[in-house]
Amino acid sequence: MLNPTAAIIIIGNEILSGRIQDINVFYIAKKLAEVGIKLSEVRIIPDTQKMIVDTVLALKSQYDYIFTTGGIGPTHDDITTVAVATALNLPIELNPLAENAIKKFCSIHNQLFNQAGEKMAFLPRGSKLINNNISGAPGFIVENIYVMAGVPYIMHSMFEQVLPTLKHGQPIISKHIDIMIGENIIAADFADLQNKYPAIEMGSYPFKKDDQHGTSLVLSSANTPLLEQAYTDLLKLVHRTSSERNSISCVKSVDHHHELT
Amino acid sequence: MLNPTAAIIIIGNEILSGRIQDINVFYIAKKLAEVGIKLSEVRIIPDTQKMIVDTVLALKSQYDYIFTTGGIGPTHDDITTVAVATALNLPIELNPLAENAIKKFCSIHNQLFNQAGEKMAFLPRGSKLINNNISGAPGFIVENIYVMAGVPYIMHSMFEQVLPTLKHGQPIISKHIDIMIGENIIAADFADLQNKYPAIEMGSYPFKKDDQHGTSLVLSSANTPLLEQAYTDLLKLVHRTSSERNSISCVKSVDHHHELT
Repeated sequence: MLNPTAAIIIIGNEILSGRIQDINVFYIAKKLAEVGIKLSEVRIIPDTQKMIVDTVLALKSQYDYIFTTGGIGPTHDDITTVAVATALNLPIELNPLAENAIKKFCSIHNQLFNQAGEKMAFLPRGSKLINNNISGAPGFIVENIYVMAGVPYIMHSMFEQVLPTLKHGQPIISKHIDIMIGENIIAADFADLQNKYPAIEMGSYPFKKDDQHGTSLVLSSANTPLLEQAYTDLLKLVHRTSSERNSISCVKSVDHHHELT
Repeated sequence: MLNPTAAIIIIGNEILSGRIQDINVFYIAKKLAEVGIKLSEVRIIPDTQKMIVDTVLALKSQYDYIFTTGGIGPTHDDITTVAVATALNLPIELNPLAENAIKKFCSIHNQLFNQAGEKMAFLPRGSKLINNNISGAPGFIVENIYVMAGVPYIMHSMFEQVLPTLKHGQPIISKHIDIMIGENIIAADFADLQNKYPAIEMGSYPFKKDDQHGTSLVLSSANTPLLEQAYTDLLKLVHRTSSERNSISCVKSVDHHHELT
């Protein structure tokens, strides 16, 4: 059985302009990996109607889930809701649940329910609400599109609501070994290991530590027994390479951030 | 005169899997803004031949510059070079300059010039080298594609080489005011300001500070005098809103990270 797939659309002039560092991709990517949903691609696009419409249309039939962040607030630059409705050819209409939620938020926070508040209550027909108890502007789900806030702490609270409702797959587990030699020394043997285990995703990433070159060898798979077997082989390979090169220091470590849930 | 445009392709299973936080987009985005090159979109894609080929083909004719990061090392998972050549329908051939550079690197670092080293010397026909004095594997420029390493400190040294060779535009300057009120209170007035200055990009971003809701109002433009004029109007608007709401504290600040170069 194949894992469900997903794409993220970051709607954000503030990322493209270099004003701020995106941290939403990392958060969502980690959470998806933990529940075995494969994040297949990410697009960071400007806050323009055409770009949002084109991107939603390009991705929505390719993946099980599309997550968007950004552009659902009350100001004129918040155009995600209208753009998503346009892409799906759905009318925008007053959503009574959204209206109630925003009115309630306004009264708690001593704010007028004004035109800006009302704007946020208009959602594509058939949308399901994602609550926003932090800043009022609700997210929503329409077809396979999950429309969330761009501000990280608000997005987190929205994502936590939707995560349990998603179809989960087999979590992808990663294990890695860091070895203090350059990539090209181990390249041939690592390729042999990949050929022996074609079902395991194997990646090699150079790094520098205390001015020495090192390589992170990463194995990933949803198949835990096979991963353990490949990892044992990798350990042997690393020890052989280390002893051949005599004084190479070999740092070993295991990745636990994708724990089984 | 319109500013040149660019797109970034991050080739990185390690980003999509949630193993690491991307920081390359932020670095490149800031540098491009400083020299007036408009970053129009970013795609983060897996290390697969089809995805790299499709993405390069989709973007290369839309933008002046395409920057890729990742996948140019010596290991089996480094497939960017071959994929870019395939997308451009160019043969891969031994590049003598790349070969010399890698051999020199190997001899300095006491490494054998092996098959893995040789692999990195094969580039698409007609490529211009981007030097890599840090880890050996060179980057390259072919047509409007700038192929760079994925490891941030190596990518930085490559990007610094190519930046002076790019066509620069008018730097985009941003100025912002932080105001300690919710977005919806200022939304209508801010929209009026946008209508008065359609040439200025205006964005509104909520934040939380000391458990209070605030809004960052950002104005961006390459037209400095017009930006100053709009900013003066924004200041007035913010002061008016603040005094209307009496005790609202208003934090004011100016964005200097996109300085004129």
